[in-house]
Amino acid sequence: MVGRRTARRPVVRVRVAPEGVEVVRRPDTLSVEEPLEIRVGGRSLAVTMRTPGDDMDLAAGFLVSEGVVSRATDLVTMRYCAGATDDGANTYNLLDLQLAPDVPQPDPSVERAFYTTSSCGLCGKASIDAVRTVSSYEVRDDPVVVEPAWLTGLPDALRAAQRDFASTGGLHAAALADVRTGALLVAREDVGRHNAVDKVVGWALREGRLPLRGTVLMVSGRASFELVQKAMMAGIPCLAAVSAPSSLAVDLAAEVGMTLVGFLRGPTMVVYAGAGRITGVSTDLMTAGTSTEALVARST
Amino acid sequence: MVGRRTARRPVVRVRVAPEGVEVVRRPDTLSVEEPLEIRVGGRSLAVTMRTPGDDMDLAAGFLVSEGVVSRATDLVTMRYCAGATDDGANTYNLLDLQLAPDVPQPDPSVERAFYTTSSCGLCGKASIDAVRTVSSYEVRDDPVVVEPAWLTGLPDALRAAQRDFASTGGLHAAALADVRTGALLVAREDVGRHNAVDKVVGWALREGRLPLRGTVLMVSGRASFELVQKAMMAGIPCLAAVSAPSSLAVDLAAEVGMTLVGFLRGPTMVVYAGAGRITGVSTDLMTAGTSTEALVARST
Repeated sequence: MVGRRTARRPVVRVRVAPEGVEVVRRPDTLSVEEPLEIRVGGRSLAVTMRTPGDDMDLAAGFLVSEGVVSRATDLVTMRYCAGATDDGANTYNLLDLQLAPDVPQPDPSVERAFYTTSSCGLCGKASIDAVRTVSSYEVRDDPVVVEPAWLTGLPDALRAAQRDFASTGGLHAAALADVRTGALLVAREDVGRHNAVDKVVGWALREGRLPLRGTVLMVSGRASFELVQKAMMAGIPCLAAVSAPSSLAVDLAAEVGMTLVGFLRGPTMVVYAGAGRITGVSTDLMTAGTSTEALVARST
Repeated sequence: MVGRRTARRPVVRVRVAPEGVEVVRRPDTLSVEEPLEIRVGGRSLAVTMRTPGDDMDLAAGFLVSEGVVSRATDLVTMRYCAGATDDGANTYNLLDLQLAPDVPQPDPSVERAFYTTSSCGLCGKASIDAVRTVSSYEVRDDPVVVEPAWLTGLPDALRAAQRDFASTGGLHAAALADVRTGALLVAREDVGRHNAVDKVVGWALREGRLPLRGTVLMVSGRASFELVQKAMMAGIPCLAAVSAPSSLAVDLAAEVGMTLVGFLRGPTMVVYAGAGRITGVSTDLMTAGTSTEALVARST
């Protein structure tokens, strides 16, 4: 048994109407948020607030994102810490991982260490260096080509795969799609956007699928620097988001040769980087400068 | 001069139509995301990915959230670190803060230390303890009463106060409203939801307004555990969110006596905790159990 993904709580629904305030009590379904402590070799590495479920994927994906592991064989065992409470019950909120002997143990302050390696000069190119991890995989040379019409179907496919969103309205989601077959490989949910992506990447690691060449990572929200970085660490050549990317997300995607699509809604999308992978879109369009001239091309 | 909040990048807008794929190049406006390193007394405390602007508020609010400071006089100076790059230019991505002599210096691993004080038993009540900070302020005894009709106007007020959302579509926002006067006191934006709240709280600290009794914190997204905790640390008695709260957010709000409103949209809202502060809503409604019986009350 693992922790529950949703919880019921009594709530009061209030509606302001011209004739007065209408108040209805009812039970409501909430997304569960609980801390997960990730230990490596018995030492605490991180605590993340997450939605229980797919915890092994989450922990594995977190280690991929942090550059600690990059192959399924790097992880020897993953188990919940038994007897976590005074009465010996298992809380399922503490995972202990064992790395293979040839994998360097992470620094317990791994995150902070990565963040502060560049102590000063956090600006422009330097600002990316200061917070970025080093990937085992290259995405620039992935020759995958993506049909725009297929891309426009991914948000619906992601929503269809979400088991809990309809009931709680409170979960982020991420899914991995195979460009060659067109199929969703996996979809994961979480109260945290980063966690949902870590769960997808961790699933792929454990399935021996890294690097994820020829795939698209679809996310329900915005595309931040960290999400581009997580995709990069897993060797994913294309990140598609329902909402806006940040400036640094676009800059990092362009720098590593990743295709970044935002505002993927209905029949439209905005391509922020790596346009050459989108069928019918010439790379020249993006490198031609910042002219406001509308350049319209049609392909059939 | 501080860092810019928005940036222009060339993008390609793609529209899939029956007659083919339409491709238009144009410049697009993005929310800027850059790392800010926060130092206290010259020692690095944290790096956060944030939207430049209101950096002093962000740093001050972060220290309030972490329990390091609670009064304006706890902070003696805040300045950008000059000469951050090789050529001596100021990047405005590094802030150094000096605390008053009587304020204990934070542990550089303050966040991690807070997260791991409870090494095991991260479950139920214990899970909250494991990650929570200790507030200087009590919100339970705040007698403020909030009109539902006024609350329903806050999302529009927040959007009106957002300077950049319309152009980028990529920023979270948080605002503080005074229940007595009905006015917005401050609104702040950021690519990160936590940062937007820290900027609001930091503004209030620097204005000498903590604890923020008699106020409502309005946020553009979801209500997570961390946002409830940040409100608690600033003494805010009511948190209102446009989207869903998590289970742990509701549990913490109930435990500390905070009013938590979610799905504040149009004329409706859902009250998850502290219903007694909402005019016309009896606390009995929430403590009467989880019966599915619809109990309708009207007040005029």
